[in-house]
Amino acid sequence: MMIINKDTQLCMSLAGRPGNFGTRFHNYLYQELGLNYIYKAFTTNDLQAAIGGVRALGIRGCAVSMPFKEACIPFLDKLDPSAAAIESVNTIVNSDGHLKAYNTDYIAIERLLAKYHIDNTLHFALRGSGGMAKAVLGALHGAGFKNGAVIARNETAGRHLADLYGYQWLPDEKGADARMIINVTPVGMSGGPEEHQLSFSEEMVKRADIVFDVVALPAETPLITLGRRLNKQTVSGAEVIAIQALEQFVLYTGVRPDEALIERAAAFARG
Amino acid sequence: MMIINKDTQLCMSLAGRPGNFGTRFHNYLYQELGLNYIYKAFTTNDLQAAIGGVRALGIRGCAVSMPFKEACIPFLDKLDPSAAAIESVNTIVNSDGHLKAYNTDYIAIERLLAKYHIDNTLHFALRGSGGMAKAVLGALHGAGFKNGAVIARNETAGRHLADLYGYQWLPDEKGADARMIINVTPVGMSGGPEEHQLSFSEEMVKRADIVFDVVALPAETPLITLGRRLNKQTVSGAEVIAIQALEQFVLYTGVRPDEALIERAAAFARG
Repeated sequence: MMIINKDTQLCMSLAGRPGNFGTRFHNYLYQELGLNYIYKAFTTNDLQAAIGGVRALGIRGCAVSMPFKEACIPFLDKLDPSAAAIESVNTIVNSDGHLKAYNTDYIAIERLLAKYHIDNTLHFALRGSGGMAKAVLGALHGAGFKNGAVIARNETAGRHLADLYGYQWLPDEKGADARMIINVTPVGMSGGPEEHQLSFSEEMVKRADIVFDVVALPAETPLITLGRRLNKQTVSGAEVIAIQALEQFVLYTGVRPDEALIERAAAFARG
Repeated sequence: MMIINKDTQLCMSLAGRPGNFGTRFHNYLYQELGLNYIYKAFTTNDLQAAIGGVRALGIRGCAVSMPFKEACIPFLDKLDPSAAAIESVNTIVNSDGHLKAYNTDYIAIERLLAKYHIDNTLHFALRGSGGMAKAVLGALHGAGFKNGAVIARNETAGRHLADLYGYQWLPDEKGADARMIINVTPVGMSGGPEEHQLSFSEEMVKRADIVFDVVALPAETPLITLGRRLNKQTVSGAEVIAIQALEQFVLYTGVRPDEALIERAAAFARG
C-alpha cells in the first residue's frame, strides 16, 4: 500500500487534456521500487502561476504536454540541449527552486536511432507538422540525417518545420523517395477517426527499409502491422513513449530501473 | 491499494515545518471511504507563488499552518466568518479557481463549547498568546464569554491579544480567578522541553470546573491527567485536532464520515 507522509515527493504533469499514461507509469515504478514519490496529472488555465507553483511548492518534476511545450519556456531557468535544439520542453526538473527543462521525446528518438543503428545517410519521409514532429525532426537533424522530406497538407506549417532543419516540404507522398518512413500524425491511433487507416500508402511501405510510427496506442498500428508483414524493420510509438517516460523517471528520481521492470511499467501504463 | 489516475484530486497543507497528522488523517479517510483524493504536505519560501499554484493547478484544498495563517490572506478571494473573526486562516477551499478561506480551529472550539454545554458566564483563564490562542479566544468571544484573562509572560503579545476581544491580561496566574482553565502553550507537549510539566498550578486546577488543553500529542497531558484525577470536566487537544481536521475534510470532499470512522482516522493520524 502506498503510504504518503510529509517526506513524500510529488511529480506531476501539465497538459491541456491530461491522460493516464504518465500517472500509471511513474506510480507503478515508485511502488515497485519502494520510492517515496507520488505522481499526479494536472491541467491549468494559468501556465505562469502553475509553473510558479511547481517552483514554490518544491514539486520535484513536471512533465509538459500540448499546448504548453513552448509557452512554458519564459518561466524556466535553464534549457538542456534536448529542449534548446527544438525550443520545446516536455520535462521540468526542480532542484531547490531551479527549474531545468529537457525534451525526453527528443532524447527517445535519439536513443532509438542509435539503438537500431539506423544509417543517417538514408532518405526519410516524415508525415506530420505538430510539436512531436518537431522533436523527431530535430533528433534526426541532430543525428546527422541530411536528406529528408516533411509531408504535410498544411503548407505553412509543413514548410516552416522543414525549413527549420533544411529538409524538403511535400504536400503529399508524390515525389517522396524514402528508405525510412515516419508517421507523426494521429492516423492509426486507437479511438481516433482514422484508427484503421494506413498513414503511408502500401507502395511507400514496400519501398522502405524502416517503418517508424510514433503512435503509441495501439503499439500495433496498421502501419506497423503492414511493416512487419512485409519484413521491414519497425520502430513503434510504444518504444518512444516508454523511453521518454523512463528518461523523465531517471531525471526525477536518479534511479534507472532495469529493462524488464520498464517493460512491465509501460505495459501497465498502456492499460 | 491507492490508485492515482488523472481524475484524482489533490489536497495539501502549507506549513513552515510540515507534520504528519493531516497527511495521515486525510489519506486514511480517502482510502476507507474510497474517495479519489490524495493529500500531501508542503512547505514554501514563496507563499504568494504557492497559493497561486494552488489556484492554477486546481488543488482542491489547502491547510495553512504557522507561519502562513495571516500572511496568506491578501492572496485569497473570500474569508468565511470563522477566518474573518480572527483574521487567521487554516483552510483554503478552491472552487474552480475561487479561493475561500476558513478557520477550522475556530470552528472546532466553537463546536466543543457547544458540545459540552459550557456556560458562557464562567470566568476563564487562557494561557498562551500565539495564533492558536487567538483562535480559541475568538471562539470564546463569539460564544459570548464576557469574563476572562489571557495569561502570557510577554506583555506586548498578551495585552494585544486580550485587548482584541476585551479581556484582561495577566503576566501570571496570580489574580486569575477562573472556573475554566485553557492551555494554549506547548507545555505538556510530547517531545517538548516541558513535556512533563503542568501548564497551570494544581491550585488553579482544583478551583476550576473545566480543564481544557489544546495540546493534542499526547491526548493525556499532565494537565488533563490531573483534571481527570480531580474529577473535573476535561476537553483535550485530541478532540480539537480531530474536529478541525474533520471540518477540513468535509469542506474539501463534501462527505461527513461517521463518529467511529473519525475516531479511527484520528487515532491512526496520531500515530
